[in-house]
Amino acid sequence: MTIRLFELCGTDPKRVFSPFCWRSRMALAHKGLAFESVPWRFTEQAALAFAKHDKVPVLVDGERVVVESFDIARHLDEAYPAAPSLLHGAPEAYRFIGAWTDTVLHAGIAGLVVSDIPAVLDEADRAYFVASREKRYGKTLAEVTAGREDRLPAFRASLLPLRHALRGRDFLGGAAPDYGDYTVFGGFMWARVVSPLELLAADDAVHAWRERMLDLFGGMARATPR
Amino acid sequence: MTIRLFELCGTDPKRVFSPFCWRSRMALAHKGLAFESVPWRFTEQAALAFAKHDKVPVLVDGERVVVESFDIARHLDEAYPAAPSLLHGAPEAYRFIGAWTDTVLHAGIAGLVVSDIPAVLDEADRAYFVASREKRYGKTLAEVTAGREDRLPAFRASLLPLRHALRGRDFLGGAAPDYGDYTVFGGFMWARVVSPLELLAADDAVHAWRERMLDLFGGMARATPR
Repeated sequence: MTIRLFELCGTDPKRVFSPFCWRSRMALAHKGLAFESVPWRFTEQAALAFAKHDKVPVLVDGERVVVESFDIARHLDEAYPAAPSLLHGAPEAYRFIGAWTDTVLHAGIAGLVVSDIPAVLDEADRAYFVASREKRYGKTLAEVTAGREDRLPAFRASLLPLRHALRGRDFLGGAAPDYGDYTVFGGFMWARVVSPLELLAADDAVHAWRERMLDLFGGMARATPR
Repeated sequence: MTIRLFELCGTDPKRVFSPFCWRSRMALAHKGLAFESVPWRFTEQAALAFAKHDKVPVLVDGERVVVESFDIARHLDEAYPAAPSLLHGAPEAYRFIGAWTDTVLHAGIAGLVVSDIPAVLDEADRAYFVASREKRYGKTLAEVTAGREDRLPAFRASLLPLRHALRGRDFLGGAAPDYGDYTVFGGFMWARVVSPLELLAADDAVHAWRERMLDLFGGMARATPR
């Protein structure tokens, strides 16, 4: 039974960059499940009509169609209970880390890299992306990321809760990674795939954690085209 | 078998205000465990020598002595598995919310209320507290909280992950509170007991959540002297 994951990509279908799709991609690898990546682009709404949804990730697992990354993680734990757990039977406990990632981490990263995204998109997606994001920000994407090197210290300071949570532990999940790690790591993969900007100082504990995450599953994340 | 909880208090022993002690106090109530509150003050180090520790909370449960609020929660789940769970068998998943509370929430609250604390302390504790905190901040406590009304909007903005995590749910734990809720709520009880400053706008979802927390266990937190 083939598992298919619809993932946002750039012109290159291997260049998957959505932070939410990365959560599902890492979750599937954590479960040891092989999957077929189905490239999807912003303007391919029609391709998701079968799921009655307009965003990725979308997981198709046999007869089941699951949308939203968190629900995909819950589905994987329920459908494959013998494989290593993602949410350890306590899904609610992972919502706060998701809320922090969505509001603090993603907003911080977007403000540093959003102007790098159009270059990785094909023509139709680029027009859609630039128009929709410039409308959201009320300024050009170049203006959003202007002076980004000067804002790196503030971004790095905003990671204090993450740094603090990693004290004395290799992963947010403890000795081994779990869905909390994948939730946060998705943001860093988004930045890594679309932008040359180095978000982290080399001596930051968050940097060491990111290296460990890049090494997981035979270096799956590290091997993704940038 | 009596359970005793050593808790930080002001001149009034019922005026317990440590955010970390509040985590343990709510955790005990969640478990339905009666306990004896043992008042402790900053300058009573000798009274904790038996625990080989210098901070509260300290829990004494029969022969067991447990220090640090997180380890107290783990102990309660392990020792009383039939009572409602605090950590749902996934303690690691609660560390990030603790890290955010310790670094973002507590730092924000301290900057708004720390100058109100000396007035609730007895003389010996007041001298210790003012000297140690002024040294930490490098300024007077009045200077730390100066202009606090003007800084309320930034504090409230910093609660965005909490607001986001509470979307569509009554508690961080979902339909019922769990240790994630108690972790965050401790910070709000600290502020409530020591300061007249209203931290939250009345129409904030965090305010509604705090009201629900104040109502738990027969209004235990709400009844605490302010």
